Amino acid sequence: MSEVARDPRPPYIAVIGDREPRGPDAHRILEWAEEVGQLLARGGAAVLTGGLGGVMRAAARGAAGAGGLTIGILPGEDAEEANEYIRVPIATGLGVARNIVLVTSSDVVVAVGGRHGTLSEIGMALRQGRHVAALSSWRVENEQRMGGPRIHRAHDSREAAQLALRLAEEGPVRPLAG
Amino acid sequence: MSEVARDPRPPYIAVIGDREPRGPDAHRILEWAEEVGQLLARGGAAVLTGGLGGVMRAAARGAAGAGGLTIGILPGEDAEEANEYIRVPIATGLGVARNIVLVTSSDVVVAVGGRHGTLSEIGMALRQGRHVAALSSWRVENEQRMGGPRIHRAHDSREAAQLALRLAEEGPVRPLAG
Amino acid sequence: MSEVARDPRPPYIAVIGDREPRGPDAHRILEWAEEVGQLLARGGAAVLTGGLGGVMRAAARGAAGAGGLTIGILPGEDAEEANEYIRVPIATGLGVARNIVLVTSSDVVVAVGGRHGTLSEIGMALRQGRHVAALSSWRVENEQRMGGPRIHRAHDSREAAQLALRLAEEGPVRPLAG
Amino acid sequence: MSEVARDPRPPYIAVIGDREPRGPDAHRILEWAEEVGQLLARGGAAVLTGGLGGVMRAAARGAAGAGGLTIGILPGEDAEEANEYIRVPIATGLGVARNIVLVTSSDVVVAVGGRHGTLSEIGMALRQGRHVAALSSWRVENEQRMGGPRIHRAHDSREAAQLALRLAEEGPVRPLAG
Repeated sequence: MSEVARDPRPPYIAVIGDREPRGPDAHRILEWAEEVGQLLARGGAAVLTGGLGGVMRAAARGAAGAGGLTIGILPGEDAEEANEYIRVPIATGLGVARNIVLVTSSDVVVAVGGRHGTLSEIGMALRQGRHVAALSSWRVENEQRMGGPRIHRAHDSREAAQLALRLAEEGPVRPLAG
Repeated sequence: MSEVARDPRPPYIAVIGDREPRGPDAHRILEWAEEVGQLLARGGAAVLTGGLGGVMRAAARGAAGAGGLTIGILPGEDAEEANEYIRVPIATGLGVARNIVLVTSSDVVVAVGGRHGTLSEIGMALRQGRHVAALSSWRVENEQRMGGPRIHRAHDSREAAQLALRLAEEGPVRPLAG
Repeated sequence: MSEVARDPRPPYIAVIGDREPRGPDAHRILEWAEEVGQLLARGGAAVLTGGLGGVMRAAARGAAGAGGLTIGILPGEDAEEANEYIRVPIATGLGVARNIVLVTSSDVVVAVGGRHGTLSEIGMALRQGRHVAALSSWRVENEQRMGGPRIHRAHDSREAAQLALRLAEEGPVRPLAG
Repeated sequence: MSEVARDPRPPYIAVIGDREPRGPDAHRILEWAEEVGQLLARGGAAVLTGGLGGVMRAAARGAAGAGGLTIGILPGEDAEEANEYIRVPIATGLGVARNIVLVTSSDVVVAVGGRHGTLSEIGMALRQGRHVAALSSWRVENEQRMGGPRIHRAHDSREAAQLALRLAEEGPVRPLAG
């Protein structure tokens, strides 16, 4: 059997955010998510999401429209739940614990808006040594200064995508204990 | 066979924080964790932790010293890894994903200090509809205001324990989508 | 603060089986599960189950009636789902993946009847190095002989409980790779 | 932005087995795994494995050599652990619990040889309503007859691949309770 050389893996970048963005910014959030997905795919990255609606669908739509690889890490047991822009659905059956799989399988995470589910994913991402680019998302601060992975604030979709692509080149940060 | 009436379950309160607190506050953090554990047990709560060292051990030590039930939700496959103050060790084998089990099995979470692992647990707790009492721990804010579970800041161990016991009486908040 | 010596942990023995046993043996299966729970508790073991109905409830009922510690490793996010004989409910939020927590946190597993969910738990138990005592449950065989943990067939509830208590004394077997 | 129609998803077929097959059949097992991977890819299926060595690597090698999509559901936190034939690595960070993700994300499972880890995956697959094609792997039987998903025995790699491709067309079976 002939040897098959694996192409270098593209950067894996997760885009996280609300399934149903609400409030006055909802439209802008979805637009940003789609632009981020598109720019990441143009930059050569695979785009991972939770595979469902809202920000997840918008980001996958942007990436798929630009010819990118879209991976959906689903909470349920049925791959058919993936939105129509997901090329590779992974039905985990883990419920909310699938978020750990999403951030761990990614090199970098982009948060676009988001509520508590997104905060938990940001926390998990940092815990797993992944940098986070945040667009209109959570601010966190701690009384103890620490090094390691961190949240990088972006002001528009272009800055978020550029940050993420640059951070992905640097690779995961060694996770901190604790 | 005789019927056995189950006693009402005590409040289940998780205490989370660093395995190895560092820096100038490390000693104070451990002291607070032990006091919080003691006060929670005196208040009738079962104290859940990640079962290992640092804040986890200090909180369990405080609770066990006050005669409380201490439950350790361990990352590994060996119950012997639990610290010596854990009465009920649960070896999950899930690695870092055990944090979801810890916050989901608790009614309320108390964060004492902590780094990224603690931030991820705070995020998960809020995502699962659990209030968080925070003592020298993460501040988070979001551009979007939202209701539901939230982080309540405490200034000392007594205030943290009282907050947690009071919030536990109210029970979990219905988780928000997203 | 006074030192608290932890009592030696009792053996942790899981009883697994159907949530709703069906067929001509359903009544016998439930009776056996209750007897096994009772005998394990009398033998000094803590009894772990999936915390819901059927075999899980019968085993917990038997153990609680004998004054034993009963732990329920629940699939959902609400401890109130535990049956009324569970003293320590652990709401994992993991869905079916909670079965890994159940077998990993136990020293030995007793299977009473059971369908595919039980087979998967038996497989996980063996994979995690836990012996299985099987009462009217799955037979498995492999073309490759191997050492390590295995399924011990019992013919009644007394034999199943005795086997489990004896195997628990020996402790977990070192898991095999693969 | 232009609409992107998703191509119909190919069948997702998992190939499971030992990381280090041993004994007199080890060579045959690896050969079979590679042939199964190749035949599945030729039949249009994506091949999912645990992403590591032994049967996992052989199956991915066969599939990649035939131009198929290979997905690796890894236990660790580092995608670089994937063998060189994996095109889409998913680093779950879940340890042994990643096996649930592997079988749940697949439509059908092929077991080639295997020890306890493989038995647990077979059990989980059946529990999740997935049929299993077994080649020199576990036999299981139960005193209670039941319908639903089952283990189909194959005698060579061609029969295993054909069975799996045919069963994948039928789709997952509704999981049984229990």
